[in-house]
Amino acid sequence: MRIGVLTAGGDCPGLNAVIRSVVHRAVAGHGDEVIGFEDGFKGLLDGRHRKLDLDDVSGILARGGTILGSSRLERARLREACETSKDHARDYGIDVLIPIGGEGTLTAARMLSDAGLPIVGVPKTIDNDISSTDRTFGFDTAVGVATEAMDRLKTTAESHQRVMVVEVMGRHAGWIALESGMAGGAHGICLPERPFEVDGLVKMVEERFARGKKFAVICVAEGAHPAEGAMDYQKGEIDQYGHERFAGIGNRLAAELERRLGKEARPVILGHVQRGGTPTAYDRVLATRFGWHAVEAAHRGDFGMMTALRGTDISMVPIAEAVTALKTVPAHRMDEAESVF
Amino acid sequence: MRIGVLTAGGDCPGLNAVIRSVVHRAVAGHGDEVIGFEDGFKGLLDGRHRKLDLDDVSGILARGGTILGSSRLERARLREACETSKDHARDYGIDVLIPIGGEGTLTAARMLSDAGLPIVGVPKTIDNDISSTDRTFGFDTAVGVATEAMDRLKTTAESHQRVMVVEVMGRHAGWIALESGMAGGAHGICLPERPFEVDGLVKMVEERFARGKKFAVICVAEGAHPAEGAMDYQKGEIDQYGHERFAGIGNRLAAELERRLGKEARPVILGHVQRGGTPTAYDRVLATRFGWHAVEAAHRGDFGMMTALRGTDISMVPIAEAVTALKTVPAHRMDEAESVF
Amino acid sequence: MRIGVLTAGGDCPGLNAVIRSVVHRAVAGHGDEVIGFEDGFKGLLDGRHRKLDLDDVSGILARGGTILGSSRLERARLREACETSKDHARDYGIDVLIPIGGEGTLTAARMLSDAGLPIVGVPKTIDNDISSTDRTFGFDTAVGVATEAMDRLKTTAESHQRVMVVEVMGRHAGWIALESGMAGGAHGICLPERPFEVDGLVKMVEERFARGKKFAVICVAEGAHPAEGAMDYQKGEIDQYGHERFAGIGNRLAAELERRLGKEARPVILGHVQRGGTPTAYDRVLATRFGWHAVEAAHRGDFGMMTALRGTDISMVPIAEAVTALKTVPAHRMDEAESVF
Amino acid sequence: MRIGVLTAGGDCPGLNAVIRSVVHRAVAGHGDEVIGFEDGFKGLLDGRHRKLDLDDVSGILARGGTILGSSRLERARLREACETSKDHARDYGIDVLIPIGGEGTLTAARMLSDAGLPIVGVPKTIDNDISSTDRTFGFDTAVGVATEAMDRLKTTAESHQRVMVVEVMGRHAGWIALESGMAGGAHGICLPERPFEVDGLVKMVEERFARGKKFAVICVAEGAHPAEGAMDYQKGEIDQYGHERFAGIGNRLAAELERRLGKEARPVILGHVQRGGTPTAYDRVLATRFGWHAVEAAHRGDFGMMTALRGTDISMVPIAEAVTALKTVPAHRMDEAESVF
Repeated sequence: MRIGVLTAGGDCPGLNAVIRSVVHRAVAGHGDEVIGFEDGFKGLLDGRHRKLDLDDVSGILARGGTILGSSRLERARLREACETSKDHARDYGIDVLIPIGGEGTLTAARMLSDAGLPIVGVPKTIDNDISSTDRTFGFDTAVGVATEAMDRLKTTAESHQRVMVVEVMGRHAGWIALESGMAGGAHGICLPERPFEVDGLVKMVEERFARGKKFAVICVAEGAHPAEGAMDYQKGEIDQYGHERFAGIGNRLAAELERRLGKEARPVILGHVQRGGTPTAYDRVLATRFGWHAVEAAHRGDFGMMTALRGTDISMVPIAEAVTALKTVPAHRMDEAESVF
Repeated sequence: MRIGVLTAGGDCPGLNAVIRSVVHRAVAGHGDEVIGFEDGFKGLLDGRHRKLDLDDVSGILARGGTILGSSRLERARLREACETSKDHARDYGIDVLIPIGGEGTLTAARMLSDAGLPIVGVPKTIDNDISSTDRTFGFDTAVGVATEAMDRLKTTAESHQRVMVVEVMGRHAGWIALESGMAGGAHGICLPERPFEVDGLVKMVEERFARGKKFAVICVAEGAHPAEGAMDYQKGEIDQYGHERFAGIGNRLAAELERRLGKEARPVILGHVQRGGTPTAYDRVLATRFGWHAVEAAHRGDFGMMTALRGTDISMVPIAEAVTALKTVPAHRMDEAESVF
Repeated sequence: MRIGVLTAGGDCPGLNAVIRSVVHRAVAGHGDEVIGFEDGFKGLLDGRHRKLDLDDVSGILARGGTILGSSRLERARLREACETSKDHARDYGIDVLIPIGGEGTLTAARMLSDAGLPIVGVPKTIDNDISSTDRTFGFDTAVGVATEAMDRLKTTAESHQRVMVVEVMGRHAGWIALESGMAGGAHGICLPERPFEVDGLVKMVEERFARGKKFAVICVAEGAHPAEGAMDYQKGEIDQYGHERFAGIGNRLAAELERRLGKEARPVILGHVQRGGTPTAYDRVLATRFGWHAVEAAHRGDFGMMTALRGTDISMVPIAEAVTALKTVPAHRMDEAESVF
Repeated sequence: MRIGVLTAGGDCPGLNAVIRSVVHRAVAGHGDEVIGFEDGFKGLLDGRHRKLDLDDVSGILARGGTILGSSRLERARLREACETSKDHARDYGIDVLIPIGGEGTLTAARMLSDAGLPIVGVPKTIDNDISSTDRTFGFDTAVGVATEAMDRLKTTAESHQRVMVVEVMGRHAGWIALESGMAGGAHGICLPERPFEVDGLVKMVEERFARGKKFAVICVAEGAHPAEGAMDYQKGEIDQYGHERFAGIGNRLAAELERRLGKEARPVILGHVQRGGTPTAYDRVLATRFGWHAVEAAHRGDFGMMTALRGTDISMVPIAEAVTALKTVPAHRMDEAESVF
């Protein structure tokens, strides 16, 4: 069998572990041939590919990034790309394509599948917001990085009687904020799923100071936003350089809290460190299992499906089902944290 | 409500996170009173206990060990202890007891429950071998520690053309060996669930050397044992000091491989470092959720039950069900690893 | 002997290790009494202090922050504070005061010493910019945190063909940027000691892309600034909320590089995570040695002096000497790095 | 210029950082050619070598082990090897050889130098016991690994009222035990430099238990040994398999303490994890500076010398001087630790 593999979308710890596992299972387990396309769908469109053998994936299990490179595909080019991809996949004699990617990639994968290309998908997102799977690899690493940062910030906040606002990734779903906030013992957590009340945060901090706990850590997802009218600053999202990111919610919330509390509040924007580097053991195991099952599914002819974690086992689920809706944080998960605002 | 809490059995990262969560939910959420018994059931038997307030659990979320201390209860004393415990729990006005512990503790908990004491259990084991729950806290931390050790050993094995035998915890179930072996990229994994063939390991190492990969890492659970006749050394388990632990399976397997291969093989026995220290974010979140749900179950009167992870949610399951059989590694999980077993 | 101890200035991993060491050596070694003042000189001025015994410092060796709290003293209040401090120190029967702090604290300490108060100083700064000592504790931890962030960013930059600009601490001296840049393999390093040429950075990145290395990591100290005329943006330091920090050099340099290169450049501002959390082993050892020698110096009557690392030994040097000039990065240290400066 | 480079002796984090730095400075800085010999002096003897270019050292800065491989040379073969090495170095047109190694390697290097081969040495040992340099790379990483293990063991020892005996590397010098013992807060430290009294350790543990601190951690160097008559077990060093290592000092001391104290004492033998894996930032910087200065020394014709850290600067010192005596832990360094020795 000839298996094509590519990685697309934002970076995510564990991509290399999937590639390695696909090659191990396919080449050593089934005697298949594996072709890697470079820089995501771009490599498939441009014909940049290389054969992947056991030696090519030696030593990459614990390495962040992806040896194949990645890229984002513009939605506008999707349909056109779909046709070309299908043709190229046939030209190269690909029996099945295993795209490893997030929601955008899986949507493209679904179109390719509908267009008749045999596809087995592997879901990937540090945000953990893909439906139909309990977890995605990369998420545990991102939560670990954010938690370690919060551990460090807590000691310094306490010694210096400060409020720290930690902005973590999560544009549409607040999983990273929820779990790193719980693990880091954040006193406030703000998620995209529920507009937060600045009043509530202010009250919480003031009560803590009144009880002698003269510091607070607030964990805020980059996609969180205040309830209507709660923060005047929310409109001014563009700074003088035209860069929206210079005044993300973390910076704005820290400024607002400092103004209202009359106490030092410092923002820390974790940014891309959450996406890179050595994956945790959890993510390496999940990624390895996904790769193994993707190859097995390919051999069974389970096309149009993607790997998914369900409880303790890996199942195959329709890609179509997975991309219909984002998996957001449900209310009962916020209740367990007791610090969601 | 008056809630008693205790931690029993071997150490496990996340115990403090459960205690903290129980106190937070009970005291701040419900206005309950929480009484902590010291050193496990011993504290309940001897009447050593103290009130736990919010301040008592401040700063312990990320700390290993247990602020309540722990101890192991001899099976022989169980029945007697059961009576005394029941009486004491009543004397102290305990409405419900939340024991946090492993299989032994849960068995005791079940007897107490059968004897009429309101019990809500929280399962705990780094070995991940308790039935009825997808995972237990502490396991992820243990796997992380073992994986990091294997990451380090791999570079040194490679540079010095060595075979490394890493012995990890797991007396009756091989979960730690399986997952750290997969995450650390071990070339051989030996589990208690399947007697290993030394011949297979020897062949694997020789094939690697022949291919120019002049090193190998083998991950062995402390409870793994060779197939009958595979290792002559297996009988001599007692060394000249009468200490069985000096010649655990890791040491013996390394000696046997060195003898058969004529190459340096070095054992590394990870030991208690797997049980201690800061829990991973995953374990902190799971422990916190267990604590929260234990208190909710107590308020609902869900007695004789324990918290369990099922997929992404926490459910309550009968303690009786959880202690009937150990959860061991099934064959299909070994297939996914594609190491030599 | 009655020893007063206080921690002042910004947070720094290792403060607790010094406090613990002072208490161990003084109480257990000499039978002294140790009094801790809260929140730096403020506690001395306001009379907030407590006795520190062996039990009070148990378990703090590896903890970030300071159990005594800290604060910054306004320069304007220094002289007045000096008189009051002296009086209070006498009221409390303090035979010697051990202030642990940075340049500001040591300047105050020198004034107190000149005014006749027996003082033994312990230098502290994550920036490593205090003269007369080879290193200060806290620096190694800060470099470690920044290096780990760069390790993570490198893999993601490489996979996504990006330029990453990492801003680390260092307002007046570039030690953190130099050493974390070297350890993290940054392709460009910008220090306060040498105005950087944006042209040089642009050229370096373009050459890397031309050679097929389609990413670059640039490490910039928060106090670095471009050579005259190199960056138009350098004047606009205040954003629309009046917060200078929203547009620090990291953000501005990333924007400038993106504009000139026509490639994605992402800023990551590490911020306060560099100041908090568990100190490295190096910092714990140095802090412990400083504490031990401070007590010995107190007993020898070596007043007006501070502890200093010289080669492998701890020496006592005049505080007066240490605060005359900042220790900045010399040119030959930049040569060794071979990055673009 | 044509520069030969090789790595010899036991593994040590930072070897790759030196190789990378030599190649960067030589190739990019001076336009030199660099030849790497494989597996230490063996590669020089057998003629196994390869050209090292910038691309060959890309991405190895943070990787443990050595891309060149290593081996130990038997002392008996040294003189013969010396002649052959000299001839081969000339055959390959090597203008200068940079051997990176420990005491054995440097002794060989000195003989080669005396025999007329231009040599610039780079000292390497995790044990930190080479004279003439304040520190060697690899040591900081080993201390960090041992300290983290002790951090983990402390929480579990405390919760379970146990004595933990941690055996760390150090056959002839106790630097790792001293610094990791200090950083990990060990209550007893045993070094090769001073025979330890078991009575003193027993007394210390008993006093701790009497004070309510019901645990203790003892850090012992593998080369430490009890004072005469202190431990009956000291003679029986060979176990039933003829493997001396099964009953190293860590195991024997734990057994002895358990016998005398009547309390659980558990040994943990850290072993090779201290030698492998990602080097700390400190070690990467030191290794990088050593590599840079070795190339500069080669260009200046500073032969027979090796790189050395003196205070904050790198100096060149005669190899002859460095190999005359081991650098052991002086008494005043033990005083600073205030643990029982």
